Amino acid sequence: MASRNSSAAGWLECERVLDRVAGAVRGVLGSGHVPDQIPALASADPHLFGLAVATVEGEVHGVGEWRRRFSIQSISKVFTLALVIEKDGEALWTRVGREPSGTSFNSLVQLEHERGIPRNPFINAGALVVTDRLLTLTGDACGAVERFLRTECACPEIASDQAVASSEAEHGDRNAALAHFVASYGNLENPVGRVLDHYVRHCAIAMSCAELALAGGFLARHGVRRDGSRLLSRSDAKRINAIMLTCGTYDAAGEFAYRIGLPCKSGVGGGIVAVVPDRLTLCVWSPAVDASGNSVLGTRALELFASRTGLSIF
Amino acid sequence: MASRNSSAAGWLECERVLDRVAGAVRGVLGSGHVPDQIPALASADPHLFGLAVATVEGEVHGVGEWRRRFSIQSISKVFTLALVIEKDGEALWTRVGREPSGTSFNSLVQLEHERGIPRNPFINAGALVVTDRLLTLTGDACGAVERFLRTECACPEIASDQAVASSEAEHGDRNAALAHFVASYGNLENPVGRVLDHYVRHCAIAMSCAELALAGGFLARHGVRRDGSRLLSRSDAKRINAIMLTCGTYDAAGEFAYRIGLPCKSGVGGGIVAVVPDRLTLCVWSPAVDASGNSVLGTRALELFASRTGLSIF
Amino acid sequence: MASRNSSAAGWLECERVLDRVAGAVRGVLGSGHVPDQIPALASADPHLFGLAVATVEGEVHGVGEWRRRFSIQSISKVFTLALVIEKDGEALWTRVGREPSGTSFNSLVQLEHERGIPRNPFINAGALVVTDRLLTLTGDACGAVERFLRTECACPEIASDQAVASSEAEHGDRNAALAHFVASYGNLENPVGRVLDHYVRHCAIAMSCAELALAGGFLARHGVRRDGSRLLSRSDAKRINAIMLTCGTYDAAGEFAYRIGLPCKSGVGGGIVAVVPDRLTLCVWSPAVDASGNSVLGTRALELFASRTGLSIF
Amino acid sequence: MASRNSSAAGWLECERVLDRVAGAVRGVLGSGHVPDQIPALASADPHLFGLAVATVEGEVHGVGEWRRRFSIQSISKVFTLALVIEKDGEALWTRVGREPSGTSFNSLVQLEHERGIPRNPFINAGALVVTDRLLTLTGDACGAVERFLRTECACPEIASDQAVASSEAEHGDRNAALAHFVASYGNLENPVGRVLDHYVRHCAIAMSCAELALAGGFLARHGVRRDGSRLLSRSDAKRINAIMLTCGTYDAAGEFAYRIGLPCKSGVGGGIVAVVPDRLTLCVWSPAVDASGNSVLGTRALELFASRTGLSIF
Repeated sequence: MASRNSSAAGWLECERVLDRVAGAVRGVLGSGHVPDQIPALASADPHLFGLAVATVEGEVHGVGEWRRRFSIQSISKVFTLALVIEKDGEALWTRVGREPSGTSFNSLVQLEHERGIPRNPFINAGALVVTDRLLTLTGDACGAVERFLRTECACPEIASDQAVASSEAEHGDRNAALAHFVASYGNLENPVGRVLDHYVRHCAIAMSCAELALAGGFLARHGVRRDGSRLLSRSDAKRINAIMLTCGTYDAAGEFAYRIGLPCKSGVGGGIVAVVPDRLTLCVWSPAVDASGNSVLGTRALELFASRTGLSIF
Repeated sequence: MASRNSSAAGWLECERVLDRVAGAVRGVLGSGHVPDQIPALASADPHLFGLAVATVEGEVHGVGEWRRRFSIQSISKVFTLALVIEKDGEALWTRVGREPSGTSFNSLVQLEHERGIPRNPFINAGALVVTDRLLTLTGDACGAVERFLRTECACPEIASDQAVASSEAEHGDRNAALAHFVASYGNLENPVGRVLDHYVRHCAIAMSCAELALAGGFLARHGVRRDGSRLLSRSDAKRINAIMLTCGTYDAAGEFAYRIGLPCKSGVGGGIVAVVPDRLTLCVWSPAVDASGNSVLGTRALELFASRTGLSIF
Repeated sequence: MASRNSSAAGWLECERVLDRVAGAVRGVLGSGHVPDQIPALASADPHLFGLAVATVEGEVHGVGEWRRRFSIQSISKVFTLALVIEKDGEALWTRVGREPSGTSFNSLVQLEHERGIPRNPFINAGALVVTDRLLTLTGDACGAVERFLRTECACPEIASDQAVASSEAEHGDRNAALAHFVASYGNLENPVGRVLDHYVRHCAIAMSCAELALAGGFLARHGVRRDGSRLLSRSDAKRINAIMLTCGTYDAAGEFAYRIGLPCKSGVGGGIVAVVPDRLTLCVWSPAVDASGNSVLGTRALELFASRTGLSIF
Repeated sequence: MASRNSSAAGWLECERVLDRVAGAVRGVLGSGHVPDQIPALASADPHLFGLAVATVEGEVHGVGEWRRRFSIQSISKVFTLALVIEKDGEALWTRVGREPSGTSFNSLVQLEHERGIPRNPFINAGALVVTDRLLTLTGDACGAVERFLRTECACPEIASDQAVASSEAEHGDRNAALAHFVASYGNLENPVGRVLDHYVRHCAIAMSCAELALAGGFLARHGVRRDGSRLLSRSDAKRINAIMLTCGTYDAAGEFAYRIGLPCKSGVGGGIVAVVPDRLTLCVWSPAVDASGNSVLGTRALELFASRTGLSIF
């Protein structure tokens, strides 16, 4: 993968790297735990592992369970953010910050110190504000995300899993607390219940590694969608990568930048999307997560991939 | 500067960019304030501005006061960190973290929650631990930094400014508090007074933009010094860039990643070093800083430079 | 009032003290502000002032608007706490702490650090847990409080003001956030919506100074109700006084202990109940509150009363 | 002890109570730990226990090791506070607050949030400010405390234990951090080193339960010294009792008020002084302390004493 051209030789090389990474991560199988705060996800098999790579030209390659769908959870926050910026430009940043939170991903502490302005759009409180704005802009935040994902993957059946969404809503007191807290500072435009509904539904979208690698392609193509049309300006696309790097993996963002060196966004369902600007989008998945909420095997696989290919933004 | 080769044409282009940036930043003159916590620095002229660029090949170009020396302050933390990692590898990371702090740069709060392990090597508490380790490894932490800088710049008179160091030591109750606090958790190897002495002295080193751009060249050359010898492994050099991106500009790191998109390290003396991996190291200087402690004109100049050249790691 | 016997002479003396206090507090009229977070209360006249004293024998005396009803708000938390302890003994203390919170009265910070166990039963989060328990124990938390108050005051029309309760519920995002947050740690037994409903309703009970002084008589009588029956053990009644002293006036409890020296419980509606164990219960009311949420005139009146009578627990 | 008169019958009763308390606390022997942050105190025998009671008339009675001296540590903070208020009145309160801290006794967190104004005079940061003021007012803070204690106990050999003071100074990084931190906000009048020196020395004063009960007599006598002269106004003496109740036992003040119901001040050397206004001052001592820093046996003994005698301010 030293070459930027995805020639046949490059692909043979790529397959070899993916196979080696998949082989090597077997060593950390059994670490971490499948999170139980969303009962519908708690039964996921921690031995599953998938990894897919999509080039900026749209070729996809994978290993393991790379075609199996899982709950994208917080990875959806990249897409809601992109769609709000597409429609609304910089206006969002009066309501959400862009700094790493420094504390656990659903912390209320900084929210209180900073008068209801969430630290960044990837902590839950910030993502609720983004969802709220997307709801105002589109009338159907979850639907807007689904439509975008279906188009990018050319896969019309991508949809939110209603069972997962219901399970999450039933056990969603923490998110409800965050939403009411943000609302108490006047930082929601829609009723709390509606915002929460769209939020849990776009988090419950089910996709495979292959699909997520394709759907995140605009991040590697500096804002250009798969069909060549522009979703975001070059500058805005780079900025989303920047926010992914500094805030995309809960309170392990520094560790990810240090070990992996690529913009990443993780979800508690075990998926992680990573971007090699101008080249590739990756998606890795394995259900067991560490204390920070990031997939254990996924993190290790990305580290091995970056180390073996030398791909890094630094 | 679209070309990676610093051809004559490239240099003409570069000069034009630097001139335009220097012209444009005049518009924010008067913003910010010259910090007064170190009396010897409080009299700096806020209208001064310098910017230098050094290519990975060692060519340097500049504009404004790019040859005038100023107090490098926290920029010295990049060099102490590099020297400790050179000599000691990964051992440091049991004593210092790698996550953004999320709060103001000299905060004691997280230090207490996390039992004396500073969040990262660039907040003051973390830099004190790095200085402590460099003192153990070399017997003369400030001297080791000075020697390194003199060699990289081929400039034997680079030295700590004793008047600035004394002024800082006299008004250094906050740093003394941090050092004693870290020591109370057993996380210093040397006496508090000695660590503080070396810390304020390496912060008081005086250098110009041109010298700092040259001295930071190893960060753009993935660990290779100016003479071609290797200071750090490729991987370790990239990792220092990663820490600069996530933690290098106090609690504005997210904002810098978003607006500028390059690893940066700032100092309260008004200097900022930025890295374009594989290409350039920049240093910009202007004494007035914003509420986060970063040079106002320097930040704006880097933003303009990145925007006009399209250079970004994302 | 030096004599413990409420003789005729004593009463004449008492009237004089009340008149003097009422006269003296006129000097601070105009300080503070009528809180606007509950719209139905925002129009209260800040010039109103009432003060009533009830002896342990049940005699009541007052000055100013001492017979006018106002919204008791957080003062209701004393009664819910007493009723839960009456029915449930010490069991409550596994779910709520007994320490001053040290921060503002609706803070989520400590709640997060302490895993959903509110600091004490008088901060909003703790009071929600108490209401939740009373709901479980009685099936009608607000009704239980109303019944108790009606009996103690021999005044069957005491009731929650539905307009105030609705107004508070509509603007209750902060309380909803607290309730969901506590629920997210498994520390509520009833649905969040039901707990909030009973909470805002018992806070919206309307009473006069005379009625509150009578209703709080059991605190001065060490647990004995007005009819001579025992509500709480001597020890439990003293303990509620202790919690009032350390936690009863939001984050100004230290200031109240220092200046007034009596167990007090305040409400954002402008009322404050104070206890002189073995002698008196006082209630003072004036709608304008200070930054801590305590009535400005009420605080000053209690300070003057304590200073002129020499009554203090210290 | 139901009678306020310390008649012969009363004393027989008192002896019986003390014997019973001493017998009953044997049951919790072995709980807690002897703190090791001050090496010179770490070897104290955790089985030792003493309890003394002094009436307002100056009669003293005791049980166990009530005549054995121990390190008074933070109990000294009551005396420094009283001496500063005696000489300086209310001026201190611009530099120190009067609210419970809500967090652990040497926390830096609130100090930072509140710009160097310690929460109250009994947390270490606040006590350093009090010592600083006493140093300014007397030129010898430790000496002033020693002189006061010697007079009240009629015991001229009461003195600071130099070995304990040196041991504490050598391991005093936390206190040094606090002092420098307070100094960084301009809230110390004397050099940090001098303040720390006097602070550790007055903490290292050695006294017995009998002596401390006598020395604290002015708190039960509303400001009157043993010789009948007035140290503090009635109001100021009551206010020190109020601060003891709300802040005197580290972050267990709410628990002490609830369980014991008397103003108390504890020290990490295992001593606790308690006040029954108008009647008694108690001092209990046993070296093993709990997680909050309060003597385990001492706390239990006070609780039993209060429960058996019915003495309580509530």
